[in-house]
Amino acid sequence: MTEVWSIDARTGEKVERVGEHATTEQVDAAVRAAAAAGSTLVDAGLAGRATLLRAVSDAIEADADAIVAAADRESALGPTRLRGELARTTYQLRLFAEVLADGAYLEIIIDHPDPTAIPAPRPDLRRMLVPVGVVGVFSASNFPLAFSVAGGDTASALAAGCPVVVKAHSGHPLTSELVAAAVRRAAATAGFPEDVLTLIHGRQAGTGLVRHPLVKAVGFTGSLGGGRALFDLACGRPDPIPFYGELGSINPLVVTPSAAAERAEAIASGLAGSVTLGVGQFCTKPGLAFVPAGEDGERLVSALGEAAAQIPGGAMLTPSIHEAFVEGAAARVAHAGVRTVLAKDGEVCPHVLVAPATALDDLLVEECFGPLVMVVQYATEDELFAALDRVPGSLTATIHSGSDEGKPGSLADRVALKVRERAGRLVWNGFPTGVAVTWAQHHGGPWPATTFSAHTSVGTTAIRRFLRPVTYQDAPAGLLPPELAEDNPLGLPRRVDGRIEVRG
Amino acid sequence: MTEVWSIDARTGEKVERVGEHATTEQVDAAVRAAAAAGSTLVDAGLAGRATLLRAVSDAIEADADAIVAAADRESALGPTRLRGELARTTYQLRLFAEVLADGAYLEIIIDHPDPTAIPAPRPDLRRMLVPVGVVGVFSASNFPLAFSVAGGDTASALAAGCPVVVKAHSGHPLTSELVAAAVRRAAATAGFPEDVLTLIHGRQAGTGLVRHPLVKAVGFTGSLGGGRALFDLACGRPDPIPFYGELGSINPLVVTPSAAAERAEAIASGLAGSVTLGVGQFCTKPGLAFVPAGEDGERLVSALGEAAAQIPGGAMLTPSIHEAFVEGAAARVAHAGVRTVLAKDGEVCPHVLVAPATALDDLLVEECFGPLVMVVQYATEDELFAALDRVPGSLTATIHSGSDEGKPGSLADRVALKVRERAGRLVWNGFPTGVAVTWAQHHGGPWPATTFSAHTSVGTTAIRRFLRPVTYQDAPAGLLPPELAEDNPLGLPRRVDGRIEVRG
Repeated sequence: MTEVWSIDARTGEKVERVGEHATTEQVDAAVRAAAAAGSTLVDAGLAGRATLLRAVSDAIEADADAIVAAADRESALGPTRLRGELARTTYQLRLFAEVLADGAYLEIIIDHPDPTAIPAPRPDLRRMLVPVGVVGVFSASNFPLAFSVAGGDTASALAAGCPVVVKAHSGHPLTSELVAAAVRRAAATAGFPEDVLTLIHGRQAGTGLVRHPLVKAVGFTGSLGGGRALFDLACGRPDPIPFYGELGSINPLVVTPSAAAERAEAIASGLAGSVTLGVGQFCTKPGLAFVPAGEDGERLVSALGEAAAQIPGGAMLTPSIHEAFVEGAAARVAHAGVRTVLAKDGEVCPHVLVAPATALDDLLVEECFGPLVMVVQYATEDELFAALDRVPGSLTATIHSGSDEGKPGSLADRVALKVRERAGRLVWNGFPTGVAVTWAQHHGGPWPATTFSAHTSVGTTAIRRFLRPVTYQDAPAGLLPPELAEDNPLGLPRRVDGRIEVRG
Repeated sequence: MTEVWSIDARTGEKVERVGEHATTEQVDAAVRAAAAAGSTLVDAGLAGRATLLRAVSDAIEADADAIVAAADRESALGPTRLRGELARTTYQLRLFAEVLADGAYLEIIIDHPDPTAIPAPRPDLRRMLVPVGVVGVFSASNFPLAFSVAGGDTASALAAGCPVVVKAHSGHPLTSELVAAAVRRAAATAGFPEDVLTLIHGRQAGTGLVRHPLVKAVGFTGSLGGGRALFDLACGRPDPIPFYGELGSINPLVVTPSAAAERAEAIASGLAGSVTLGVGQFCTKPGLAFVPAGEDGERLVSALGEAAAQIPGGAMLTPSIHEAFVEGAAARVAHAGVRTVLAKDGEVCPHVLVAPATALDDLLVEECFGPLVMVVQYATEDELFAALDRVPGSLTATIHSGSDEGKPGSLADRVALKVRERAGRLVWNGFPTGVAVTWAQHHGGPWPATTFSAHTSVGTTAIRRFLRPVTYQDAPAGLLPPELAEDNPLGLPRRVDGRIEVRG
């Protein structure tokens, strides 16, 4: 079957035929067209690419009603959430326009020549970052807009100067087509070739994209299984390319005894909301909550069960995600070490399960995508730290601390240092769902949270994935790109002879 | 055979038994000891690690005579070159101490909370880079000091806060032991555990190092074959780790017709020196020189042959490198499209071979490690650009331009844009051997030059390989590390609410 259909996530019915899986020839044509469009992105410079990003943002806003309607039907996430996600998507595009206006991402470094330098004379050296070339982007199921066709990967790649070929997620092909059409229309109106972004469908097309010689990097958000397979393909090429994948995250949350004593009910209420947000289909859903054994911890567990019981279930993104959740929940309920506080066999609804820290095994620390939280009760600090050593790499780790723990050496402090070893973002006294798009954001973490813990897929530093440095040595002044010119015509922040220079 | 011997590179004789190959248990013990030493590197902070790096530099200088004598015997590179390399090695260590004093490498970004932010309220977010953990370092054959035990990989890893386990190169085990002893002694005197650096020997030990669960990144300089095998191991782990390898580089050099007309003889003379420096055993040796067909190009070829004929051969680093060169040179001499200007069958001496651009094939664009240059004659610009499209990714590309070519659109300019696609450093009117250690240096490039074109093994930005970001969200002020504290007690450059702030 090579036809692509838009499916109603609430009914499972085929609604509309969207297109066909791309053939090998079509993937090749898309990548070649993208590569040919690449020079226009470079030639446009910082200001030209900022204009493109703003035009794309405007075009998506202009089509917001149709896009949100399609996304709601295909994902069942609801129009309110999807309007918010669309606003986030267009904000991201405009934020990368700001990144270009700022220019620090180019990491300009200039060292003037020094014939008397020790240990050897130095030539004139000028370093900047340049785009890597065509980027392949794999859309996520759970963010049909913000981590999809015109999401963070695409925004950062276009900002960097890289044309993009997007593999649509099979869960929302119509939404993907609508967004791609808006991007391509915006490109044309801004004076760029439409092929700065092309959309393709089909799993085989996706593997062809990762293997294509002209594709120089890949951005991916999805499952551990699918992501690992594509990561292996990228690494196994004759010329390996970086595969920046976000694959899965258990997101541990630790409640200290002091925090449990102070506000068990408030933590329980917030946790119930975070676990069930978007039917638990967030990469940052806290899947593992460490609470103290004993009275305060039990109060927290009871309150959590009660709060979660008030929250309705809902349709999941796709039939296969639905099945995986039902099976995963059943396996955990059946686990000998697990006590069930809240669960309904075969239903997608909030699940609260409890296990002692000493019972943790590979299953219990594995992500279960959906509205399920595994509460882990620890009797001693030693039990807590031993259990934390079993937690896989995560996007986030959360610490709920008491009002007396704001000092170095407190349990909260020691927990933070421990979980920092395996998480990209440390959240205090809050919940990890909700990832602000800012300069300081980091959405990454050790394997399996991501394939490269040095990189992020959210926030302005996401642009770094699609860049590589080039140093010009003794170039004639007339042949330097404006980014490296001595008189700094673009007003870029730069390091010159070791000193950082920023224009006021 | 598990014994490790120091071999005289000039005679091939075993001189001294240095030790034994590390067993699996010994590799495990070394990595665990390194991991245990890691927290002391973190706790020491910027100033403490700077002290360590300076102490290591001093200790190596104190043992310079013994180290240079061993390195000369084991590499045949000669005491003058090796004294220079030792000075470069200690300079690198001190430069990374300056990087720590500067602190910008931490990439501090702070976004204050904003409850009214669009598209969603923002928490307090504070981002910094933290060390990845234990780093495995594989030493190079051709730089027994500067790319070896205490070379750039180790200096940048220690600066980042990562303990190091070094796999010694089999070509210079005694030199490696002497340097490792100096590093460990320096660590102890500076108040650190000696195990911040451990040396191991043996190929099997090396694969065990790449596979060890506590090793979080690898730095490597060596051959394409060996590097690819280790890269595949690193990517194939249950939890893949980044393998930063420098694997081989052909380093194209282009002489424009205008440059050839102006100074064929001067270019030839410089090129002969660059090709034969260190018996041609530099990663940046220009292996492929594009010169115009016709009279000026022929003048250049003749002058190159004459200049190279005046330069003596020499002993190569190891018997296997010697053999590979003799075989590689013979294969090229036997190539139907190749004209031999200078060569001696079976001898390690300067080789100058010439081929028309139209004859280029995979063999002729492949690196031949040693004093050999393949001159490629192009009859037209189209021939030149078609030939450049065949050149693999390289650390460097060099352009020799005429005095009339300093303007955009000139042939030199167009060649630069073309070779930039596949090189990390562009050298004008000079030669790529000699890699200055500075802030702006980039020693990297697309595959196979390196495994990740986004990273460098030389220059201050090499530290980035061994770091990953962590963002603190809404952390209590008392639990923030000093790097992220509101009042900036360390005086670090940082970006706050989008604006770059640098203390005067």
